[in-house]
Amino acid sequence: MVLADKLNSIMAEIRSQSPLIHQITNYVSINDCANVVLALGGKPIMAHSPLEVEEIVSKSSALVINTGTPSEDRIKSYILAGKRANQMGIPVVLDPVGAGATDFRNEIVEKILKEVSISVLRGNMSEIKSIYGINTKIRGVDSAENPLHGGLEIAKGLANKLGCTVAITGEIDVVSNGYKSYTMENGHEFLSSITGTGCMTTSLIGTCCSVENDPIYGAIAGISIMAIAGEKALGYLKDNEGLGSFKVYLMDAINRFSSQDIERGIINEI
Amino acid sequence: MVLADKLNSIMAEIRSQSPLIHQITNYVSINDCANVVLALGGKPIMAHSPLEVEEIVSKSSALVINTGTPSEDRIKSYILAGKRANQMGIPVVLDPVGAGATDFRNEIVEKILKEVSISVLRGNMSEIKSIYGINTKIRGVDSAENPLHGGLEIAKGLANKLGCTVAITGEIDVVSNGYKSYTMENGHEFLSSITGTGCMTTSLIGTCCSVENDPIYGAIAGISIMAIAGEKALGYLKDNEGLGSFKVYLMDAINRFSSQDIERGIINEI
Amino acid sequence: MVLADKLNSIMAEIRSQSPLIHQITNYVSINDCANVVLALGGKPIMAHSPLEVEEIVSKSSALVINTGTPSEDRIKSYILAGKRANQMGIPVVLDPVGAGATDFRNEIVEKILKEVSISVLRGNMSEIKSIYGINTKIRGVDSAENPLHGGLEIAKGLANKLGCTVAITGEIDVVSNGYKSYTMENGHEFLSSITGTGCMTTSLIGTCCSVENDPIYGAIAGISIMAIAGEKALGYLKDNEGLGSFKVYLMDAINRFSSQDIERGIINEI
Repeated sequence: MVLADKLNSIMAEIRSQSPLIHQITNYVSINDCANVVLALGGKPIMAHSPLEVEEIVSKSSALVINTGTPSEDRIKSYILAGKRANQMGIPVVLDPVGAGATDFRNEIVEKILKEVSISVLRGNMSEIKSIYGINTKIRGVDSAENPLHGGLEIAKGLANKLGCTVAITGEIDVVSNGYKSYTMENGHEFLSSITGTGCMTTSLIGTCCSVENDPIYGAIAGISIMAIAGEKALGYLKDNEGLGSFKVYLMDAINRFSSQDIERGIINEI
Repeated sequence: MVLADKLNSIMAEIRSQSPLIHQITNYVSINDCANVVLALGGKPIMAHSPLEVEEIVSKSSALVINTGTPSEDRIKSYILAGKRANQMGIPVVLDPVGAGATDFRNEIVEKILKEVSISVLRGNMSEIKSIYGINTKIRGVDSAENPLHGGLEIAKGLANKLGCTVAITGEIDVVSNGYKSYTMENGHEFLSSITGTGCMTTSLIGTCCSVENDPIYGAIAGISIMAIAGEKALGYLKDNEGLGSFKVYLMDAINRFSSQDIERGIINEI
Repeated sequence: MVLADKLNSIMAEIRSQSPLIHQITNYVSINDCANVVLALGGKPIMAHSPLEVEEIVSKSSALVINTGTPSEDRIKSYILAGKRANQMGIPVVLDPVGAGATDFRNEIVEKILKEVSISVLRGNMSEIKSIYGINTKIRGVDSAENPLHGGLEIAKGLANKLGCTVAITGEIDVVSNGYKSYTMENGHEFLSSITGTGCMTTSLIGTCCSVENDPIYGAIAGISIMAIAGEKALGYLKDNEGLGSFKVYLMDAINRFSSQDIERGIINEI
């Protein structure tokens, strides 16, 4: 399959190039976001002071902006780093954590989208809906709204509006760049029961985009790796084990992700 | 037993309601505090900017304030969020991390207790003693002072003074709301050998209080879950395994907490 | 062996004294840096507000300064805490995370070295080279440059210049105080594939220095524990397990570190 070849080639490139991935992220999942990049074969660099982000991003192969636990200082850094990444022509991947939850978050995401050119926007259904301008009832940052309920239209419409790839992750994932669209059906609900799996998915997408010119394939690769690794982690669970062990096995599965794992992908162009 | 029924009903309510728990917490255990709420069946939301905490807490079912790694900005957020929670009538659970350790921390806790009405205050012996006005020699944030040495009188006295439930956790835990008091004897010393178990206990208490009107039962439930899960995690340890695996199994045991586990509780009204 | 006796005695002292270790560290590995001190038998205290670090350090037996994810506020705290530690005569161990990566980081490290007297400086090859004034191409914060390529001369030279012990960790570790120098050959490349192992090594060195008068032995002890625990963790890995499980086993191995483990040390005075 063409798609499987593409994903295999992305994995191989990451492992051979070991790209440096600059992440400006939240305090909750920062450790996991660094480890997931390492597990895949990249090199993370987590730096968020406005006094250094431009210099850091100048040495990097991709920038991940995650708006969780925001502060006024970090907003400056999102913009400074994003603009520099645009000048350099490296991909910027945005995780609009909590968009729709507060006015403060909405303003942050609006500011980023206005001033920075984004390659991939990844969020859950309520975050993406909120950015698309649809009022939505948010429940925390891990909303479980089903992306299939209108998700395809929203992803496609927003992708056209923003000129980037939009990924809505949930029970079924939807990815669109406006002209090509895919649904992805891997994963397990346990992934929404540990904090930061959305953030980590975005970190994986950033890593994949750093070695792949077409952002839609970077997005599909990052989402596939997390979803299939989640299925494998579930299979490793033994008696008495629960979410603690699941998180450990998830990192194991990402670290040992193989061509055979890619074959498990249920991905359809629609 | 009446108490076991109460705890079972709290567990069931959390799993069916999946309450949103707003936590303003420290940078050390923030990931664990989010995961422990998810493991129990709640939804955590970690937000600490003064620009958004009021809006976040407005959508939440309980607020947890943890004063670890404080900053001037976060102090504003404790108060803003706490006052809004009070207006809404949702429980506020306070973990006065490091009270007694520095003047800065003492002032923070004093300010919170003056401006915000608290449902449950949970700390270790030296933190609670310090708040009660007793000079104490603090050794780090995980003081091992034995709660039984005067602990009951202090918990009861402070509960009456503040009009809330006070929980002192340690080798033996003491919980009092001024008229009813309990000792709890589960747990294992390993729980004090990984960072953040006190913070996580407070997160569990906040989650339990979100579905239970009487804070003393929320406190007992949260402390029981952590202590009994610690005993179970210890039982899962295999050859060569130590504190790394213990932490993983602890999260597993919290995630799989059952009615049978509740039966292990050694809780006495005194 | 004299060195083994020294390391055994350091381990025993930590376990009997349970020293309080004040760490001002980054947001990525802060949880691991606290847990690693606990796993070894010490008590961590993580506090970084300039409003309290002097009071915290006054109660501590060692100070660890780690310049990862820096902010202007934390720079004040490095200096305030460092100066107070110097007045008290307790060891200060510095991890100059990202030195050489940006002008901002270089200025921070320069400021610390100018105003605070350091017992041990531990970094990777590119960080130490950069401090020594050698232009180097940095790739992220986990540079894999081989310390043996001129590492001994650099460690020795910098140790003489700064009047402290300098440790360069990498595939082979080099430790020098200017007159005595050692190479250390334990460890495994997996240690550079999880985030924060460098930071954790510095935390272990700080803990070891708190009970040992000669900083070079504290440095050797901390590096040995991490490197040998890494070898043991690798040995515990089962089918399908990868970096997720490795990190858990690493903490287990540090926690259960024994005299027998010390015997595995490949340490040579050169």
